[in-house]
Amino acid sequence: MKLKPLADRVVIKMVEAEEKTKSGIILTGSAKEKPEVAQVIEVGPGGMVDGKEVVMTVKPGDKVITSKYSGTEVKIDGEAYTIVRQSDILAIVE
Amino acid sequence: MKLKPLADRVVIKMVEAEEKTKSGIILTGSAKEKPEVAQVIEVGPGGMVDGKEVVMTVKPGDKVITSKYSGTEVKIDGEAYTIVRQSDILAIVE
Amino acid sequence: MKLKPLADRVVIKMVEAEEKTKSGIILTGSAKEKPEVAQVIEVGPGGMVDGKEVVMTVKPGDKVITSKYSGTEVKIDGEAYTIVRQSDILAIVE
Amino acid sequence: MKLKPLADRVVIKMVEAEEKTKSGIILTGSAKEKPEVAQVIEVGPGGMVDGKEVVMTVKPGDKVITSKYSGTEVKIDGEAYTIVRQSDILAIVE
Amino acid sequence: MKLKPLADRVVIKMVEAEEKTKSGIILTGSAKEKPEVAQVIEVGPGGMVDGKEVVMTVKPGDKVITSKYSGTEVKIDGEAYTIVRQSDILAIVE
Amino acid sequence: MKLKPLADRVVIKMVEAEEKTKSGIILTGSAKEKPEVAQVIEVGPGGMVDGKEVVMTVKPGDKVITSKYSGTEVKIDGEAYTIVRQSDILAIVE
Amino acid sequence: MKLKPLADRVVIKMVEAEEKTKSGIILTGSAKEKPEVAQVIEVGPGGMVDGKEVVMTVKPGDKVITSKYSGTEVKIDGEAYTIVRQSDILAIVE
Repeated sequence: MKLKPLADRVVIKMVEAEEKTKSGIILTGSAKEKPEVAQVIEVGPGGMVDGKEVVMTVKPGDKVITSKYSGTEVKIDGEAYTIVRQSDILAIVE
Repeated sequence: MKLKPLADRVVIKMVEAEEKTKSGIILTGSAKEKPEVAQVIEVGPGGMVDGKEVVMTVKPGDKVITSKYSGTEVKIDGEAYTIVRQSDILAIVE
Repeated sequence: MKLKPLADRVVIKMVEAEEKTKSGIILTGSAKEKPEVAQVIEVGPGGMVDGKEVVMTVKPGDKVITSKYSGTEVKIDGEAYTIVRQSDILAIVE
Repeated sequence: MKLKPLADRVVIKMVEAEEKTKSGIILTGSAKEKPEVAQVIEVGPGGMVDGKEVVMTVKPGDKVITSKYSGTEVKIDGEAYTIVRQSDILAIVE
Repeated sequence: MKLKPLADRVVIKMVEAEEKTKSGIILTGSAKEKPEVAQVIEVGPGGMVDGKEVVMTVKPGDKVITSKYSGTEVKIDGEAYTIVRQSDILAIVE
Repeated sequence: MKLKPLADRVVIKMVEAEEKTKSGIILTGSAKEKPEVAQVIEVGPGGMVDGKEVVMTVKPGDKVITSKYSGTEVKIDGEAYTIVRQSDILAIVE
Repeated sequence: MKLKPLADRVVIKMVEAEEKTKSGIILTGSAKEKPEVAQVIEVGPGGMVDGKEVVMTVKPGDKVITSKYSGTEVKIDGEAYTIVRQSDILAIVE
């Protein structure tokens, strides 16, 4: 299954951070401070949304930071995604 | 009876998930994680809604994901439906 | 007395459902699941409402479903009616 | 004293219902179900209200039904009036 | 000191009602039902307010009725005034 | 340090009232009724604010009255200022 | 990692105030009154935001004062930043 977001919606997935310590041990997720970064998976077409023209400026693969608590969580094929409006995306992390 | 939604309203029906396990047993609804997918049954005509032009982009048969708690539940001929605005539909599942 | 709704208002009346069981007994209202259908009695003229052009698309006699709890109940000559905005009407039942 | 409502305001007065029973006894107000009808006393000039053009469609003498709890009650020369916006008037009773 | 209201603001002063009883005794303020009438003292220039053109229709000396609880009370040189928006003025009393 | 307000913001400072009694004693601030007047220190450039053109009509040195509780208090070099929107200024005191 | 804010977003960082006392002792942060000043780190492109044209008027390096409690705090590479809308910035400190 694949999610095709409508209008100004964007499908994102929280990034499971993975980091090698100097000693070579790999730390994932809960073992360290929760990362606040998500990856863009799918981007809606934009266009007229609530009577206002919206141009989509994020693209699949972008790492982004969103407003806390924004969006709707969904589970597709056992994977958890979040669907947000593009206006809930605060910044791209480069 | 048939529901003809007005304006930007869409009639959807929660999908009763059915899945065969490897052993051949069929699991429905409550026996597993509740699916969050609904099927579009009827689509309103769109047009001017609250002073803004709305173009309908979903069509009957589409599998969709909606905002949680959005819409009004109705029972017609013993069948439960939900009537939502198209803007409450987050994504189409393909 | 007769109600002439203003602007985008619509006067509706909850339908007292009546249904023959196979054995011929007639069931009304409280004896079965409450129907959620109302009948349109009078329709306002539409026009500019709160700065937006509203075209009326329902007509007297239509069976409709409205948002729960919307509208104002009034009693005229002992009959109970509800006055709603057309935008509170979700769908026409055919 | 006389009230001249501004903009889209309308001065109304609750109608003290009076009704003869078959035996000739006159019942007023509290002796029976409270009527929900008011009479239009004065009508504002309409025009631009909150940036939107409002045309007044009610006139003095009209019997009207308003949203419950809308408006401000005032007492002028011992008489109680209510001042509402025209958009709080749901229907004219004929 | 003198108050010059900005935009669509209006400075009003509650009228201290004074009334002669038939026996010639003068009743003021708290001795009888609180009057709900205020006098317009100063009127702002109107113009663009929150993106909308506002034309001032009240003038100093007008006796007016305002929405209850609207406005800000200020004390200038020991005198209490209330500053309201013109849209909080419901009617002129003539 | 100096504050340069953005958009329709205005930096004001509560006026520490000073008043000579007839006997020549000087009363300041807390010794008498709290004045509700502030002095304009800096004025933003105005222009498009939230999609609406705002023209600034107050200027540094004006004595003004603001809505109670509006604005953000800041302390710069030990001095307390309040930053408000021009629309929170109700009147100029002359 | 670097944050590229979207639309009218601005990335700011609270300024860790540092101040030499006359005796030459350096006081930082918690040792004195909390400064309310932040430094602009990155500025979004502006443009159409919620249907309104926004021109960015702050630039990286500006010292600014923001509405209390506005914005979202994020931690990137162990450093804490706040992402605000430009409209949450009240004034530039010079």
